Amino acid sequence: MQRHLDEELAALKHKLLKMSALAEAMIVDAVAVLVDKNEAALPHVARSEEEVNGLQVEIDENCLTLIALHQPAAFDLRFILGAAKTNAELERLADQAVNICDKAKKLLHEPPIKPFVIIPKMAAVALSMLKDSLHAYVNLDANQARTVLLRDDQVDEMKAQVTENMLAIMDTQRAAIKQAVSLILIARNLERIGDHATNIAENAIFVLEGRDIRHHHMEEKK
Amino acid sequence: MQRHLDEELAALKHKLLKMSALAEAMIVDAVAVLVDKNEAALPHVARSEEEVNGLQVEIDENCLTLIALHQPAAFDLRFILGAAKTNAELERLADQAVNICDKAKKLLHEPPIKPFVIIPKMAAVALSMLKDSLHAYVNLDANQARTVLLRDDQVDEMKAQVTENMLAIMDTQRAAIKQAVSLILIARNLERIGDHATNIAENAIFVLEGRDIRHHHMEEKK
Repeated sequence: MQRHLDEELAALKHKLLKMSALAEAMIVDAVAVLVDKNEAALPHVARSEEEVNGLQVEIDENCLTLIALHQPAAFDLRFILGAAKTNAELERLADQAVNICDKAKKLLHEPPIKPFVIIPKMAAVALSMLKDSLHAYVNLDANQARTVLLRDDQVDEMKAQVTENMLAIMDTQRAAIKQAVSLILIARNLERIGDHATNIAENAIFVLEGRDIRHHHMEEKK
Repeated sequence: MQRHLDEELAALKHKLLKMSALAEAMIVDAVAVLVDKNEAALPHVARSEEEVNGLQVEIDENCLTLIALHQPAAFDLRFILGAAKTNAELERLADQAVNICDKAKKLLHEPPIKPFVIIPKMAAVALSMLKDSLHAYVNLDANQARTVLLRDDQVDEMKAQVTENMLAIMDTQRAAIKQAVSLILIARNLERIGDHATNIAENAIFVLEGRDIRHHHMEEKK
């Protein structure tokens, strides 16, 4: 029996929100492994990654089936294609949490070369971007989507600051080099989480306004 | 007048190939800026990036229109959705070339801390993966797509080698730290180009076999 398109779309939204909640928890856990040396969080991240990968395949299939069965026009078609793209962003975003874990794991038994200040802040901003971008997508809220775009620069600046701080530390502490490089790379992982959230927010605006704002939001920010 | 779907699909393939050719040239140029200190290549990369961004928007619109007008079923629908995904991969892949340029630009007037050996090799493998993945996609060649998946590990290993070499250099040459970090990051950009090509190859297999091999090709490799 073919359910009504609206019901199917509600189920699709629900799956995207579930995937996003998993990804959020993965990021929180990854940062806990790094900052609090919380080794116990590692298996959670691994389990969530599997779940995220399963959901990705499922959502992609749902999108295909929805288009094939309902042949939706204009708005709904944009929404479904946007959902498929958002799906891909979420999976990659979750991968970044796994990458952070891989590096944090190697630092578990090393004392931090410097108290963690910027990285937890970066993570908090990236998490807020993720939450808001998903909310904007499923609730079709263009204003909220635009607030996500504005935070992308903050994350980029914090990444630049981490890189600068780490280069300064490496310059004087030879023993800190390996850890400093890991932290530069972790800051990049967090930056990429912000990028993926930005892409999701752009997807929301595309669905709503039918125009492609990629490669243009730099101007919008001004 | 609504053209025949096959003609539209041929035009779509042509645009993907054009985008891929631009991305290839961008990678070659980015590596030339780094390895040959070829500053003259910088404006080419910037121009190509604009062209790639324009093509991305165009291809996405084409995919939407094709689905809305022709309401394609099964195979064609998978091909069009796969084209939209491949489009996103190509744009990101081209971004990596821009990122390499940004770092290479800062090294233009610095003597290399070590002759470039692995990075040009990595670039060559990544380029071959890009070419073959696109060829596999537009010609629907699953065997060729699988050869791309096999090369992903090579790129990952080379990245690990660059990182290791650079950490060793930093350990003894303080003055080399900044450049060494840039080269670690450039190796990561090349790795990501390989990842995007891998994703395109997976898209090809998905279109052909109607099954999702993401998160499974690790097993296929064995």
